Amino acid sequence: MLKVINSIQEWKQIKARQLINQTIGFVPTMGNLHVGHLSLCKKSASENDVTVMSIYVNPTQFNDRNDLQKYPRTLEMDLTLLRETKFVDYCLILTDEEVYADDYVYQVSELYLSQMMEGIFRPGHFTGMLTVVLKLLLGVAPNRAYFGEKDYQQYRLIDGMKKAFFLDCDIIACPTVREESGLPFSSRNNRLSVEEKQKANVFSSIFLKKYQSCEEILQQLQQENIGVDYCQEIEGRRFIAVRIGDIRLLDNYPLEV
Amino acid sequence: MLKVINSIQEWKQIKARQLINQTIGFVPTMGNLHVGHLSLCKKSASENDVTVMSIYVNPTQFNDRNDLQKYPRTLEMDLTLLRETKFVDYCLILTDEEVYADDYVYQVSELYLSQMMEGIFRPGHFTGMLTVVLKLLLGVAPNRAYFGEKDYQQYRLIDGMKKAFFLDCDIIACPTVREESGLPFSSRNNRLSVEEKQKANVFSSIFLKKYQSCEEILQQLQQENIGVDYCQEIEGRRFIAVRIGDIRLLDNYPLEV
Repeated sequence: MLKVINSIQEWKQIKARQLINQTIGFVPTMGNLHVGHLSLCKKSASENDVTVMSIYVNPTQFNDRNDLQKYPRTLEMDLTLLRETKFVDYCLILTDEEVYADDYVYQVSELYLSQMMEGIFRPGHFTGMLTVVLKLLLGVAPNRAYFGEKDYQQYRLIDGMKKAFFLDCDIIACPTVREESGLPFSSRNNRLSVEEKQKANVFSSIFLKKYQSCEEILQQLQQENIGVDYCQEIEGRRFIAVRIGDIRLLDNYPLEV
Repeated sequence: MLKVINSIQEWKQIKARQLINQTIGFVPTMGNLHVGHLSLCKKSASENDVTVMSIYVNPTQFNDRNDLQKYPRTLEMDLTLLRETKFVDYCLILTDEEVYADDYVYQVSELYLSQMMEGIFRPGHFTGMLTVVLKLLLGVAPNRAYFGEKDYQQYRLIDGMKKAFFLDCDIIACPTVREESGLPFSSRNNRLSVEEKQKANVFSSIFLKKYQSCEEILQQLQQENIGVDYCQEIEGRRFIAVRIGDIRLLDNYPLEV
């Protein structure tokens, strides 16, 4: 049965008293759960004795205050989904007061990969993300933590952080889960109007033609009036970010060799 | 008997295989050991089953390249001292290649306390220090870690980092150990000429007159031609940094109430 926990302190006590010698899988989220999140939970449940999800909308990774305010918060629905799917044993709901008791004066930053792509368009985003993920990884102390490949740059930064700081936790990337149109599931999809959603589907149908070059993709997106922040290839993988209305959508895939 | 270990990987294996359920005390150092270090080791040995010391001259915390090059490296003497005093069970000698496999692209910084006093005179110093200490605390994973009050600003920053990142390790401050003149033991004392050492002793005799104000102390140091970077009081404690030749010396003490 799902247990809801409201602080890292409470979790640490439960872990020390009740979960000795059990392997722990961890799925950090900002809530508004969708099947992408569930795929991470399912994988964690298959690989660990216990699965913990955190739900916390981390303010420091939002460079855009408007985006933070509009971020969908659907806690009751999220908990219902977790209860019905049964992959998650503990749901950790965190507060700014506990996570940022330090007033965000301590920060973890990365100076290379974080300066590309999303880092250019979202100043401060990756520092906020790395800081909160390190807090969570150390507070929860799991054996494995699960992240979606949809945010591949994020995954790579977290995996690099794990190595740089000798964390014992395994960082596991899980394949992007897509809607029928090919659009990756994302909490921000819920903010798209019907018209914008159609445009988002067009975006995906264009981007997912892997045999095309970035330039060909850019041309077609331009014809559809879809604003592109970047479309580029790094280390055998193609990344894109587009703007549809005031929503940014990301995607990426490995290039065939 | 002292065991010398040459990597965090090796330490992690020993810890997992041979030290299960033992409490571990940790004393991170840059070598050139003196009685100040030994007091930390003695305290650790009295409070833990096993004591680990690391010896690593961390390049990223030296803002002054000259200071890094001249930092005394006395590994054979250090190991002899550890063998004779018997407080330390494991000595972990680290390399730049392992500690900075990430090329120092991941950094931990603090934005408030680190901007005062030493932070003003040594740009980048505290970021390098916090980064390496977090690597060591996570790599060694001790129950307790010991730091000298001589570097009180450093201790406070590390203790804040522990809280901000939910580290399980206790951060323990140990009293400053002083030479007969009152001068705190420091590896940098070994770089003072005979004349400079006399001046350092005069510095201590002036600073340790606690009943005087900072201004009175400054005046007397000026008369002795001793350059002062700062002398100030924060949260009931008085801090000072002076320059003698090209050596900087620090000290601090709590003010009587």
